[in-house]
Amino acid sequence: MKRIKIVEALQQKETGVKVLVKGWVRTRRGNKNVNFIALNDGSTINNIQIVVDLANFDEETLKLITTGACIAAAGTLVASQGQGQNVEIQAENIEVYGTADPETYPLQKKGHTLEFLREIAHLRPRTNTFGAIYRMRHNMAMAIHDFFHKKGFVYVHTPIITASDCEGAGQMFQVTTMNLYDLKKDENGSIDYSHDFFGKQASLTVSGQLEGELAAMALGEIYTFGPTFRAENSNTPRHLSEFWMIEPEMAFYEIEENMDLAEEFIKYCIRWALENCQDDLKFLSDMYDKELIDRLNFVLDNDFKRLTYTEGIKILQAAIAKGHKFEFPVDWGTDLQSEHERYLVEQHFKRPVILTDYPKDIKSFYMKQNADEKTVRAMDVLFPKIGEIIGGSQREEDYDKLKKRAEEMHVPLKDIWWYLDTRRFGTAPHSGFGLGFERLLLFVTGMANIRDVIPFPRTPNNAEF
Amino acid sequence: MKRIKIVEALQQKETGVKVLVKGWVRTRRGNKNVNFIALNDGSTINNIQIVVDLANFDEETLKLITTGACIAAAGTLVASQGQGQNVEIQAENIEVYGTADPETYPLQKKGHTLEFLREIAHLRPRTNTFGAIYRMRHNMAMAIHDFFHKKGFVYVHTPIITASDCEGAGQMFQVTTMNLYDLKKDENGSIDYSHDFFGKQASLTVSGQLEGELAAMALGEIYTFGPTFRAENSNTPRHLSEFWMIEPEMAFYEIEENMDLAEEFIKYCIRWALENCQDDLKFLSDMYDKELIDRLNFVLDNDFKRLTYTEGIKILQAAIAKGHKFEFPVDWGTDLQSEHERYLVEQHFKRPVILTDYPKDIKSFYMKQNADEKTVRAMDVLFPKIGEIIGGSQREEDYDKLKKRAEEMHVPLKDIWWYLDTRRFGTAPHSGFGLGFERLLLFVTGMANIRDVIPFPRTPNNAEF
Repeated sequence: MKRIKIVEALQQKETGVKVLVKGWVRTRRGNKNVNFIALNDGSTINNIQIVVDLANFDEETLKLITTGACIAAAGTLVASQGQGQNVEIQAENIEVYGTADPETYPLQKKGHTLEFLREIAHLRPRTNTFGAIYRMRHNMAMAIHDFFHKKGFVYVHTPIITASDCEGAGQMFQVTTMNLYDLKKDENGSIDYSHDFFGKQASLTVSGQLEGELAAMALGEIYTFGPTFRAENSNTPRHLSEFWMIEPEMAFYEIEENMDLAEEFIKYCIRWALENCQDDLKFLSDMYDKELIDRLNFVLDNDFKRLTYTEGIKILQAAIAKGHKFEFPVDWGTDLQSEHERYLVEQHFKRPVILTDYPKDIKSFYMKQNADEKTVRAMDVLFPKIGEIIGGSQREEDYDKLKKRAEEMHVPLKDIWWYLDTRRFGTAPHSGFGLGFERLLLFVTGMANIRDVIPFPRTPNNAEF
Repeated sequence: MKRIKIVEALQQKETGVKVLVKGWVRTRRGNKNVNFIALNDGSTINNIQIVVDLANFDEETLKLITTGACIAAAGTLVASQGQGQNVEIQAENIEVYGTADPETYPLQKKGHTLEFLREIAHLRPRTNTFGAIYRMRHNMAMAIHDFFHKKGFVYVHTPIITASDCEGAGQMFQVTTMNLYDLKKDENGSIDYSHDFFGKQASLTVSGQLEGELAAMALGEIYTFGPTFRAENSNTPRHLSEFWMIEPEMAFYEIEENMDLAEEFIKYCIRWALENCQDDLKFLSDMYDKELIDRLNFVLDNDFKRLTYTEGIKILQAAIAKGHKFEFPVDWGTDLQSEHERYLVEQHFKRPVILTDYPKDIKSFYMKQNADEKTVRAMDVLFPKIGEIIGGSQREEDYDKLKKRAEEMHVPLKDIWWYLDTRRFGTAPHSGFGLGFERLLLFVTGMANIRDVIPFPRTPNNAEF
């Protein structure tokens, strides 16, 4: 008999048919005549109930069927008498593939803290919580590819290992094959990287944007979706050393079209979650965040309010004047904190906000300079609960302005000659933005710690599994 | 007026309408009355022809419109008099966004070698060849996600940075934030990695398979699609230091179902290419590989022949006995070379081949051991022209056998305790395989050098851009 997935068995309308399911035992309970096994195979958060008439099975087999064991169960699909499911399986044959010793298997029926589950990240996908999160992670990845593919964007793999150093070496991981016990040095005592694998010092990328722009200036509209790295020593619920980024870059887009795209994009992802992840969303909402689904609908149902950073600062200062307390000061020229962003979204406008035209000194060298010589054509999309979810800008397309700004900000020109070349040859107005994939996942799952929305988190002192 | 993409303009049936296109000038030619600009925006390999009545444009603007320049052209879409296109644009207004000095712009009209284009990988997407390749790369990525998503597989991001060392440290890149000028050592003179970022020695992953299995033993059917790394000092047309892998892992699949999936999967990708990349395929076929499309159809139209490694060896030895010459010897127990694989595919069976049950000593520790104690349940899918395109196996699900084999092959158990745990708790038969994404791309594009199917190749002494 061919196995069917539990998600299909549960949806089957026709009862009385023989089915074969395989999965992991979540619980077994019962009385002296009949046992009920809740079986899950990862295809859905819902378990199927296997009804075991004890008279038909030998005791030795049944003893092995404990929480965590893996079994195949064949039987007849019947209408369920119990609550919470339409159908169940009246077992006729059960094969035990793998046992799970109740003395040592860590995932017993009782609830576990998220902290404990992080220590057993190799087993946590077997829990309801992480099954739901990883199915949603999958769905958000599919939504992203689907969105861009339908629009004719080209998916580009930008390099992971890079010899450029455009955002400051202090936060980058070095990649090397040198023998650290026998480092070759030159006459000045400097390490001689000509002996290293790439013939020069190499690191893990912090962003695929610059290479993405190269592709956009040929293919028109592109996006990246790949891992990026930060060697910050930050042990917080919002930082990962290894995380995934989505970075679209579009030739011929000015900042307004960039904002339109960002809004359409994020709404597409959220609509996808609401339409395709109902069971998982309901579980996460019930367990972790009662307002989750309302918050997703809030984003879907509202046009994003667009205003300049300068206007935002005025609103925040007016709030302070009326007695609102912030932990951090609000001054033109400094970056906004999450509390400021959330105030604008949750209290002032009561809708998502896009702030534009930030002071140039708090933004990167590649952003398009405004005529006021003080601000750049940046945009940050601000969301309820989490603050900034997307950051982007129109890019500076003028060769001289870009080069001057890179020099002012001490970006080594020898490392970005190829980037500057796109402005030397056939330059064009263009824009792009970046979305941290795990930040999107925090938003759509309602989880509070970023280590819980990536299968195997990497953080300071942690690269287990 | 809203810009339309050139791919849309070329398909438009209604002439006489006003359109606005933007893109890069491929060529400009003409006479003293009229000029013809071939414009490309990356949305298709085909250019649109812009017809410029010289009387209506000032000379200064026209001078700037050289190969590589970026322009916006507005005008009327009219039926084309010329060959090779149905429509063209009678220009009414042209704006030059960016010039490309003919003295310095490297991509002039004349043909360039692929070697030269590799040196300007930041500009090569502007050529027909690389536009075609990158659109096909995009399409193959979409085909892969689409295939697995429709089947209910979960896309899993396995970690890039790993502290495990399961395939031999010699070929791995080390990842560190230690100050190489001041390495801390312990009393034995060993580097003290407790000072490194992750508190232990860390590397870039060579495969996501082991972590993928963890997810499969909870979510059922999963796949990875991410970058992997090899620090081999191999300067060949088939090796990259950084490349992308697809690795599906499926609970409850035996080797036969694994083969079924691999065959269905690769045919799905190839069918996608034939149906969605016609113009690009035709170009690559005409320019680089006249047999390309026939070869794709050959794979689609044939059932893959399945036989054991041992049977394959006999066939090869019989060929030698009949006088066929191979460069490398054929002996049971040694790995097949590409020439042997291609002989089986191209000359003996005349269809793709799946070889199974390889000698255990040439395969990894995690493959399921056969009862003969000599072979393991491995499978390699062999293709015309390139040899092995997919490698996989049923995985050893027995804890004791797996542990013993890991020890025999000197895999440090302390690094894979979490992997062994999946066999301690609720183990099940399961299988999986790996496909090198760039190897698939070599096959579907007909290109000969793997550095030409990834945007920014990383190889020994090369991490430019």
